[in-house]
Amino acid sequence: MRMKTAYSEEEKRFLRDLGNTIKHYRTLCDLSQEKLAFASNLDRTYIGSVERGERNISVINLNKIATSLNIKPSELMKTA
Amino acid sequence: MRMKTAYSEEEKRFLRDLGNTIKHYRTLCDLSQEKLAFASNLDRTYIGSVERGERNISVINLNKIATSLNIKPSELMKTA
Repeated sequence: MRMKTAYSEEEKRFLRDLGNTIKHYRTLCDLSQEKLAFASNLDRTYIGSVERGERNISVINLNKIATSLNIKPSELMKTA
Repeated sequence: MRMKTAYSEEEKRFLRDLGNTIKHYRTLCDLSQEKLAFASNLDRTYIGSVERGERNISVINLNKIATSLNIKPSELMKTA
């Protein structure tokens, strides 16, 4: 259940930038959302919503995704 | 209400490292938990639990804390 929280425009942009960065690294790795989800032990639809900037992702899930993409979580947050 | 989620030992260490890093930068800025909480628009007890590694913090809250500490959120995640 996605908690409907009102985010500021700045927070929405922050989440969108983070989602774009994750998508960038995923495509660099030539992984589908499904394969990234499987590798991260997360749901494919969750990966999709994160990439669209619709999720205020937790640091543990961010670390799972970073580990699957073979980079540090701090790298994923660099452009956000 | 803190959701009691079972984290792996590795995830617990990840959260503890992140909490220690936040505490490190907070003390560098000579801020109390209370002042950091006020600056971040978060609760002081929340800051305390994050520093103890008891919270799977969201990226937006991490960004609020980083902004209050005048550093990038990626810096906070570097040692985690």
